[in-house]
Amino acid sequence: QWMMLDWKPKRADMLVDPFGLGQIVQGGFVFRQNFSIRSYEIGADRTASVETLMNHLQETALNHVKNAGLLADGFGSTPEMCKRNLIWVVTKMQVAVDRYPTWGDVVRVDTWVAASGKNGMRRDWLVRDSNTGEILTRATSLWVMMNKETRRLSKIPDEVRGEIGSYFVDSPPLVDDDSRKLPKLDENTAEHIRTGLTPRWSDLDVNQHVNNVKYVGWILESAPLEILETHELAGMTLEYRRECMRDSVLQSLTSIVDKGSGDSSHPGIVECQHLLRLEGGGEIVKGRTKWRPKFVDKIGSFGQAPHESA
Amino acid sequence: QWMMLDWKPKRADMLVDPFGLGQIVQGGFVFRQNFSIRSYEIGADRTASVETLMNHLQETALNHVKNAGLLADGFGSTPEMCKRNLIWVVTKMQVAVDRYPTWGDVVRVDTWVAASGKNGMRRDWLVRDSNTGEILTRATSLWVMMNKETRRLSKIPDEVRGEIGSYFVDSPPLVDDDSRKLPKLDENTAEHIRTGLTPRWSDLDVNQHVNNVKYVGWILESAPLEILETHELAGMTLEYRRECMRDSVLQSLTSIVDKGSGDSSHPGIVECQHLLRLEGGGEIVKGRTKWRPKFVDKIGSFGQAPHESA
Repeated sequence: QWMMLDWKPKRADMLVDPFGLGQIVQGGFVFRQNFSIRSYEIGADRTASVETLMNHLQETALNHVKNAGLLADGFGSTPEMCKRNLIWVVTKMQVAVDRYPTWGDVVRVDTWVAASGKNGMRRDWLVRDSNTGEILTRATSLWVMMNKETRRLSKIPDEVRGEIGSYFVDSPPLVDDDSRKLPKLDENTAEHIRTGLTPRWSDLDVNQHVNNVKYVGWILESAPLEILETHELAGMTLEYRRECMRDSVLQSLTSIVDKGSGDSSHPGIVECQHLLRLEGGGEIVKGRTKWRPKFVDKIGSFGQAPHESA
Repeated sequence: QWMMLDWKPKRADMLVDPFGLGQIVQGGFVFRQNFSIRSYEIGADRTASVETLMNHLQETALNHVKNAGLLADGFGSTPEMCKRNLIWVVTKMQVAVDRYPTWGDVVRVDTWVAASGKNGMRRDWLVRDSNTGEILTRATSLWVMMNKETRRLSKIPDEVRGEIGSYFVDSPPLVDDDSRKLPKLDENTAEHIRTGLTPRWSDLDVNQHVNNVKYVGWILESAPLEILETHELAGMTLEYRRECMRDSVLQSLTSIVDKGSGDSSHPGIVECQHLLRLEGGGEIVKGRTKWRPKFVDKIGSFGQAPHESA
């Protein structure tokens, strides 16, 4: 269980990791990194955006591999994977957010890996308020290996297992698997469609591909403004199907599955279903999001200036 | 002169500022904050993007005001400014980049303010490699006060001057003023036009306005791909004219002023001119960018995976 991660705020943490680059803790199984939430990482709600959150998850995953001395290519491939042209590909990501931090808050991200079936890897993240230890976010992701030349999935070779297997933790996922089948979403069934989405130059990563965190922004592009304004994202499940290239033109489709009837224990919860696809067809990401009503006292906004700052 | 900022890497820095939230140094005049460059802050060139750089500038500016105990509204307005409905509005930004840091590098940003004319404020930034002290970037910005109700510019009231005047440094700007008049740019003279740009939900700040750093990304949207691929941004001058709202639709116009003839001391330097305007007319930002050829050994890319990471 992840409760094994007992919470002890330690002054020592700060001294050992002065620049917040993170370190391996818990007997070598857990990578831990603190992030102070920066002013430009918060959005219209004054809280960190879900993209910010996912960026922090990505960063800790890479730093984990780097700190273990296994980073061979800048993208999480180990030396034995590089020899074989193998890369990690994320197939599923599930995130549950209890509370979003705000500017100046410091969050502590713990991450670890586990086996998933015979040839997959699971990576979990636990995000806490570094001051209070309050759990802010839990996330679980599934990864498989792919040959980057043939684009075919691969088993985990023994040599790679030798490199990473000793890091695998024997614990259940932090977020229960949401395996409900997503109903078919297309231009006939979607209630909200945003077309003509194209990557900006700044959306590209070092492979000139769109970083998968950017997909989240695109998915939210077709979420109705009423929901964005009155609700906050409480959770999501994303299934990654294929890649988006520099010249891709995308469509973002959203359908509201549950308008907020909720049940007695979760009043007002809205559920949406999403599809990000190429204009020519071809699914990029399928997903589901869950939204809870914002507290009214969080909505108020102040000031109306153009380039306010100092 | 900014040379007054002598470079002494101090272990003490790290111990005093464990979470990288920054602190006031140099007898109270300079605010200093370290940033480790995160994996998601680098772009296709494997170096920090110019937006990342400008985000760090924004963050230190706000933290400076916060650390001075003068942050009354989350946007750099002081208590006396808030009483009078006054906000800071940036009118000009000049940035000169010598080298872009990469993932894992730690940069040290120093920032300070100075008077600009009778009723303006200047803010300068000096960004160094925190390990070597090498200067990476210099930036200078100009700010005026605006009444957020009437939208009219304001003098600096004596009470506000009383709050901030003692922080003003008597030093020349870090970047020489580029006051060359920008020639008229419109659909007839621009060589590259990108239309239909709209803010994403995640581009909005807490005022539901587009954060001014986002403009940089939009300006680069109309920069020709050949330049983005073969050159790196060496400097820019931006003049902010008016605000962009949530529902604005923008056009980004670019014209190449100098195709890279350069002079003997700066071979291959390309200069562009830019305009970001509302589709209905109305200038948002005018600007100029300078590009230098990339080193060939920086261009190589590796891997071709969709969601590579770990």
